Amino acid sequence: MMKELYDIAIIGGGCAGFGAAMYAGRFQLKVVIFADNMGGTITLTDTVENYPGFKKLTGGELAEKLIEHAKDYKIDIVEEKVTDVGKKGKLFSLKTESGTFGAKTILFATGTIWRKLGVPGEKEFANRGVHYCALCDGAMYKNKVIGVVGGSDSAAKEALLLSDYGKKVYIIYRGENIRPEPVNMTRVENNSKIEIINRSNVKEIRGNKFVNRAMLDNPYKGKKELPLDALFIEIGHIPLSELAKKLGVKLNEKGEIIIDRMSRTNIEGVYAAGDVADTEFKQAITGVAEGVTAAYSAYKHLGESGDEKPKKKAR
Amino acid sequence: MMKELYDIAIIGGGCAGFGAAMYAGRFQLKVVIFADNMGGTITLTDTVENYPGFKKLTGGELAEKLIEHAKDYKIDIVEEKVTDVGKKGKLFSLKTESGTFGAKTILFATGTIWRKLGVPGEKEFANRGVHYCALCDGAMYKNKVIGVVGGSDSAAKEALLLSDYGKKVYIIYRGENIRPEPVNMTRVENNSKIEIINRSNVKEIRGNKFVNRAMLDNPYKGKKELPLDALFIEIGHIPLSELAKKLGVKLNEKGEIIIDRMSRTNIEGVYAAGDVADTEFKQAITGVAEGVTAAYSAYKHLGESGDEKPKKKAR
Repeated sequence: MMKELYDIAIIGGGCAGFGAAMYAGRFQLKVVIFADNMGGTITLTDTVENYPGFKKLTGGELAEKLIEHAKDYKIDIVEEKVTDVGKKGKLFSLKTESGTFGAKTILFATGTIWRKLGVPGEKEFANRGVHYCALCDGAMYKNKVIGVVGGSDSAAKEALLLSDYGKKVYIIYRGENIRPEPVNMTRVENNSKIEIINRSNVKEIRGNKFVNRAMLDNPYKGKKELPLDALFIEIGHIPLSELAKKLGVKLNEKGEIIIDRMSRTNIEGVYAAGDVADTEFKQAITGVAEGVTAAYSAYKHLGESGDEKPKKKAR
Repeated sequence: MMKELYDIAIIGGGCAGFGAAMYAGRFQLKVVIFADNMGGTITLTDTVENYPGFKKLTGGELAEKLIEHAKDYKIDIVEEKVTDVGKKGKLFSLKTESGTFGAKTILFATGTIWRKLGVPGEKEFANRGVHYCALCDGAMYKNKVIGVVGGSDSAAKEALLLSDYGKKVYIIYRGENIRPEPVNMTRVENNSKIEIINRSNVKEIRGNKFVNRAMLDNPYKGKKELPLDALFIEIGHIPLSELAKKLGVKLNEKGEIIIDRMSRTNIEGVYAAGDVADTEFKQAITGVAEGVTAAYSAYKHLGESGDEKPKKKAR
């Protein structure tokens, strides 16, 4: 039995989701947001200095502000995981532990998870030397020694960015040779601060209150112990797009949901925003803007399909 | 004689411009922002309730926050109007009253101007009953009588949005019949709060401290005086894209600068963001995100063209 029929169901309680919820509320749509992880990935970031308007706050504080803003409008927040989605005619269904919800439109703001190294110390030192985003957290390590795990173009770009802050940056890569785009490879090679350690895995991260060394499986300069102040793990993200895929939503080769400038997917009434989308430059601010745009697109779609504000038609 | 060579020159001191300046500063680019109108159009809005993260503040306050945030980074602010732009080889030149500046990339964040009615009272009652944006300012007029000047689809949509707040909404249009999209026309016709006054011009806006009536040239129900609490003027915007056009930047039929999802125009090294761009849904938050994205695109472009951070190459 369906619990309730919504104009828009937003899956994901991060920046993009709550930005969208606020705007959808302003459009006076009937809104539900499924937020099993209230606040989303940003809450894992200690210092946010790049959400325009706030010079500096914690990720948790930013999330709280976006959530509180959305709560100013009439929206339903369900702190449950959506475990399944379906479509019947023009309506979508969303299943959670507590039941099945109906929706005329769906916004996937499901985000990604950082791919984890899965080594001892990674969890313990999260935000105390272990990080996943140079632009978010790099500036903390001015004149420090920084390690970057990974060999992709992203890893190289993170290392280059980190070299603006740190006095020394190690790229630690398990493979034969790191494989960034040529331009970034050249830059890495020309950068006197960056040193590449190929054919090596970080097996453990150690420290006291903060990280102070990484343990390598393949000795570097004769030592398995590499002293450093921070380790940035850049081995990719996993977009949480499984449910979208079930609805026939088109993904790119990375598994990200392909959207257009109006945050629309290939399926009518289905939108995506934030880290799960195929946007090249993913930031809190761009994710929020995509969410806001998705809310507008849903509002417009509901109007065009004659489904807007059914409560009014009854009068 | 050229005064200075910048990595990026941002034209326009509104939300999009300063959002971009902050990010460009974070990327450690050499940044200049030309802001003859510090803060931009948002400063004309009394109450901003839809910039995610800030529940409620004035447009001036939001602008101030974005400006202050950008100033945390090393950027040059030139409070002068750019009167001319040119291109020589790969470099752009920008002319102001005080001289000529050089830049490797340009971001047009020049915004639009609201098309004004140009009648007595319009300027005097600005923000005290005279408004140009229903989503920005409509919520102030709960249960009030509101007029909308204009006959376009935008005007109709503004009237529909305003009918969610006001008890009565007049659409005042000089032509024979308003001409929104059919779906919006139907909605207007079915909306018991909205009344259309065709073939009528507002010749004057009157009031005491706040607007209390509009003077029509063609009597409505026998009277040239129409009592109302607010008048929203929705007769279009004029995108400030003249200089971009001079560089060969492609505009759409409205004169807006055509950009892609990375805020790139058709000309390499030239970007646009905010109200001057061809984005359908223009909000402070989307403009800022476009600015941020433009800063990233410029940063990336400078890297690819080998021009990034020349100060470092000298070492």
